[in-house]
Amino acid sequence: MPFSLKILGSSSATPAYGRFPTSQLLQIEQEFFLIDCGEGTQFQLLRYRCKPNRIGHILISHLHGDHFYGLVGLLATMNLGGRTEPLHLHGPPPLEEVITGQFRCSETWLHYPVHFHPLEPVASVIFESETVTVSTVPLQHGLACTGFVFREKPRKRRLNKDALPENLSPHQLRRLKDGKDVHDEHGNLLYTNHQLTLPPRPSLSYAYCSDTAYHEPIVEHIRNVDLLYHEATFLASEAARAADTRHSTTVQAAAIAQLAGAKRLLIGHFSARYKDLQPFLDEARSVFPATDLATEGSTFSLAE
Amino acid sequence: MPFSLKILGSSSATPAYGRFPTSQLLQIEQEFFLIDCGEGTQFQLLRYRCKPNRIGHILISHLHGDHFYGLVGLLATMNLGGRTEPLHLHGPPPLEEVITGQFRCSETWLHYPVHFHPLEPVASVIFESETVTVSTVPLQHGLACTGFVFREKPRKRRLNKDALPENLSPHQLRRLKDGKDVHDEHGNLLYTNHQLTLPPRPSLSYAYCSDTAYHEPIVEHIRNVDLLYHEATFLASEAARAADTRHSTTVQAAAIAQLAGAKRLLIGHFSARYKDLQPFLDEARSVFPATDLATEGSTFSLAE
Repeated sequence: MPFSLKILGSSSATPAYGRFPTSQLLQIEQEFFLIDCGEGTQFQLLRYRCKPNRIGHILISHLHGDHFYGLVGLLATMNLGGRTEPLHLHGPPPLEEVITGQFRCSETWLHYPVHFHPLEPVASVIFESETVTVSTVPLQHGLACTGFVFREKPRKRRLNKDALPENLSPHQLRRLKDGKDVHDEHGNLLYTNHQLTLPPRPSLSYAYCSDTAYHEPIVEHIRNVDLLYHEATFLASEAARAADTRHSTTVQAAAIAQLAGAKRLLIGHFSARYKDLQPFLDEARSVFPATDLATEGSTFSLAE
Repeated sequence: MPFSLKILGSSSATPAYGRFPTSQLLQIEQEFFLIDCGEGTQFQLLRYRCKPNRIGHILISHLHGDHFYGLVGLLATMNLGGRTEPLHLHGPPPLEEVITGQFRCSETWLHYPVHFHPLEPVASVIFESETVTVSTVPLQHGLACTGFVFREKPRKRRLNKDALPENLSPHQLRRLKDGKDVHDEHGNLLYTNHQLTLPPRPSLSYAYCSDTAYHEPIVEHIRNVDLLYHEATFLASEAARAADTRHSTTVQAAAIAQLAGAKRLLIGHFSARYKDLQPFLDEARSVFPATDLATEGSTFSLAE
């Protein structure tokens, strides 16, 4: 029952020091969400042995190039990889024509359907399955930009293998998984559901906030998330530059995590001006100790 | 007086085994030409310490994604790198809107001029300087596709440092470099040009032919080139697949080199189905011994 985030790219506008533009792969149970898709995302998926064709949804926060220039190449590679499963693409409205225009001039015809879902600049639920709800968070950036919040729905109780009698039928097992009690063929209660099941693990949540200036209205949308990614393009000393470019500093990202009551914080989208990232970690931890760097190849597993 | 080719990407449609999509950087004296620009070209320039802002011309052979998906990111990075020098972009007509459309929706405004030169599907001179003439070669591919031929113009004689008298004025030195004799202030001949100069090194040439089926009409345009790059997407055993997809095999590339009287052949654009490239080299050399693999990071210097 994994809930796991893989970092594919941590750089801001330009690649530097082996850091790639922004992209992350989130796995929630068997659903894979690719969040942003900077140039080279397909190389990173290959490098970390993540199969592109397992991705069901791609979410593009905004149309600065470092967040989507890798999308057209990835879609083309999925096509050459024999994909037939539909792909759901969520992004700002102009994205659809950017992609289809490039395929048109390449005379490339995809063998799988791409369902495009335009993002509106208001908080709203954009996807819902039995497992998870995905909603948007308006961010404050130069260009229309949305964050994404993934919240697992209340989970079902788990079978307690140590307590299970051996002679249960598949039908009885299914009832247990669905939260029901087990009866015999005459309708007599054999076991209550709670006798044979364990409480579910807590429902988990992840919020992705990039790119954005320091913007407290974010907080209400991401309250109490288990894991928060908040961009930290600059060190605290560059607060003026951060404000000018509608980005955040380390301590601003940490302050948002604190205000939101997040359990853990990841920071990324590092400016190419910095080679050493240790000061990012030190500064953010001085405000919010449970901080990590979202560097390439890191995996943050909240559940296995 | 360098004449040197750096390989940035050798893969065909999808990246594989650390191979990047097609791109090459050609230096002729102080002029830098980027030939094709697949996704990740800017990473490769960074990796090999090639400065993007020295590139004056970018030439895009055709609009299959593996030849141009890295262009928009590279242009954006040049912008962030402070470029103000004009850039000349040569490519199929739809390329201009592909690029400007993406910048428009990103609200990206370049601080340097990009002069777009649409390529026509006929052989023609597309650029000429004091040093070099660049012309196109129509190739045979699914989509309009042109190769490029770079031929140095006849070069000037070089100063013979061992023969130069010490007392020559800057004016006299300039006359020598321009191929003229040296006189004293009264107009009397002091030295003939040949007394103080050496013959120039031979003018060099490079031809780039990718992507293309086996197509003998190429030969007349690339005759006697010093270095020929010809795609070899497949091994000889896949000749039928090569014909279907309008690509070439190893032995076809080698046959074109032989027919053209090329001095050296480079092959590349390897299909992702192959991990080991040694068979490519062996097959091509069986027909044309002076063959090398155009793999990432290789440099082919015809003059220092």
